[in-house]
Amino acid sequence: MELVTGGAGFIGSHLVDALVGKGKKVRVIDNFSSGRMEFLSHHNNNVEIIECDLLDFENVNKAMEGIETVHHLAANPDIRLGTEVTDTDLKQGTFATYNILEAMRKNNVKNISFASSSAIYGEAEEMPTTEKYGPLLPISLYGASKIASEVLITAWIGTFGGKAWIHRFANIVGPRGTHGVIFDFIHKLKKTPDRLEVLGDGFQEKSYMSVGDCVNSMLHLIENTNNDVNLFNLGTGDTCSVRRIAEIVVEESKFRNVKIEYTGGKRGWAGDVPKTFLNVDELLKTGFEPTRMSEETIRDCVIDLIDEIGLR
Amino acid sequence: MELVTGGAGFIGSHLVDALVGKGKKVRVIDNFSSGRMEFLSHHNNNVEIIECDLLDFENVNKAMEGIETVHHLAANPDIRLGTEVTDTDLKQGTFATYNILEAMRKNNVKNISFASSSAIYGEAEEMPTTEKYGPLLPISLYGASKIASEVLITAWIGTFGGKAWIHRFANIVGPRGTHGVIFDFIHKLKKTPDRLEVLGDGFQEKSYMSVGDCVNSMLHLIENTNNDVNLFNLGTGDTCSVRRIAEIVVEESKFRNVKIEYTGGKRGWAGDVPKTFLNVDELLKTGFEPTRMSEETIRDCVIDLIDEIGLR
Repeated sequence: MELVTGGAGFIGSHLVDALVGKGKKVRVIDNFSSGRMEFLSHHNNNVEIIECDLLDFENVNKAMEGIETVHHLAANPDIRLGTEVTDTDLKQGTFATYNILEAMRKNNVKNISFASSSAIYGEAEEMPTTEKYGPLLPISLYGASKIASEVLITAWIGTFGGKAWIHRFANIVGPRGTHGVIFDFIHKLKKTPDRLEVLGDGFQEKSYMSVGDCVNSMLHLIENTNNDVNLFNLGTGDTCSVRRIAEIVVEESKFRNVKIEYTGGKRGWAGDVPKTFLNVDELLKTGFEPTRMSEETIRDCVIDLIDEIGLR
Repeated sequence: MELVTGGAGFIGSHLVDALVGKGKKVRVIDNFSSGRMEFLSHHNNNVEIIECDLLDFENVNKAMEGIETVHHLAANPDIRLGTEVTDTDLKQGTFATYNILEAMRKNNVKNISFASSSAIYGEAEEMPTTEKYGPLLPISLYGASKIASEVLITAWIGTFGGKAWIHRFANIVGPRGTHGVIFDFIHKLKKTPDRLEVLGDGFQEKSYMSVGDCVNSMLHLIENTNNDVNLFNLGTGDTCSVRRIAEIVVEESKFRNVKIEYTGGKRGWAGDVPKTFLNVDELLKTGFEPTRMSEETIRDCVIDLIDEIGLR
């Protein structure tokens, strides 16, 4: 049986879909802080759902029984939150990962697949950024908690054995998205249809990947790489600017003559990395090919989210 | 006033000596888990000592009042402990660093100097290893907690401002040492003077630096570097093998005909990195020059510790 933490969340629920599609038995742990039961409701009773916070060690320990691989996706999804509440990423990121690893050790579960992030690179000098880039100087508490989790995992494997897949995600977008720039833009435009405020100068530029490609690449790597620690950037190998995203949101909405306004400054908020551009050569070498590049991914996502949020 | 966490410990107490020598007012926080009051007793009442665990946030917060720079050295000093107790490094490392940063934020303290470790590099492919080396795949929970602390610090500065010095220590040895290979060898030999057991094959090879050079280089970097984040390897630029250390301990002891026995295997215990070799070009470029290289450092340390432990 496979365990998906955060399995009722945005990426987690798509991963559950993919695992079920492969005929796997799936158990989900989610505290439903940002996950939603409706993201899993189409599975009826085929997926076991445990409502539980990962800080509740006793229940995490029970949930580990009979698990072959843990897909650890649970985390605070809102990078900006760290500028106001400083212990969320530490607890829901680092400490939660510790509990997962300790429960794995106690239940002799050997495999973990972990959702890391391009946020770990901070303002990298090397673009596109490879997995070997260092030193890692993240500027958000979210990025710090992702590195802390990565290295807890590698240390655990060095000390107790086992196997890990660490996926450093580009910005992942698609249906069921519950946060992020596209989600924010659509909600803003729904509220004030004549203007769209963009945080920063809009020249922020990041790698985007569709959630479908994301979960397929995660599973591809688990099946096709076999080191003790398998560490990969997951993305499309290109970027899209926030200005372009704002334009696409307006183009795909029913509104015309929308004034796009920029608050200025190179970053949207303290901890926002102005440019991320992941080198994904290592992923491509394993034989995985993303179906869509950044801009196409964004347009598809905008269309999906406009339908979900109701902007037409 | 300067705050030294772990100021009653091995390196911490030498740092207190150096700061007092520069005419600074010093406050120490220590939980005396491995620190000793006698390491500070020569300062009489010139150093303010707070007996407090860093997990006790209220008292950490109070201790931060009027502080200019925090020298954060407190941590579990025993790397091997993580193989048996899995939450010590997480709590006394990562979580303690969080409390320090949060208390700094609340008290508007802007400068932190942090004792990191070569353990973060894991089994690095690049030797000597530069600060830019990646990916960081530590194999000990101690190493994981040091990285987690490093990135919490850089994320904090990216989010809330301030200035950090991160020192990635080689193996630091000298008087008042309370753990480590030299300490262990001398105690073993005191117990069984006819034989000395070495964990592993003895070909483990690491960079060593004297504790005096260590604290002087820390203070040198604080005075001579001024980026938001200043990250440096601290060491001598050479290495010494565990076999050579065993020989030196025997040479400097009063015992003759000691049989040195090796338990075999390339590492002493799970989580032991067989070879560390720090590139210290960046440190040397700032004008700092270590007074002694690895082997001389070790011999001096052996002589000091044999006197302290009483092996002659």
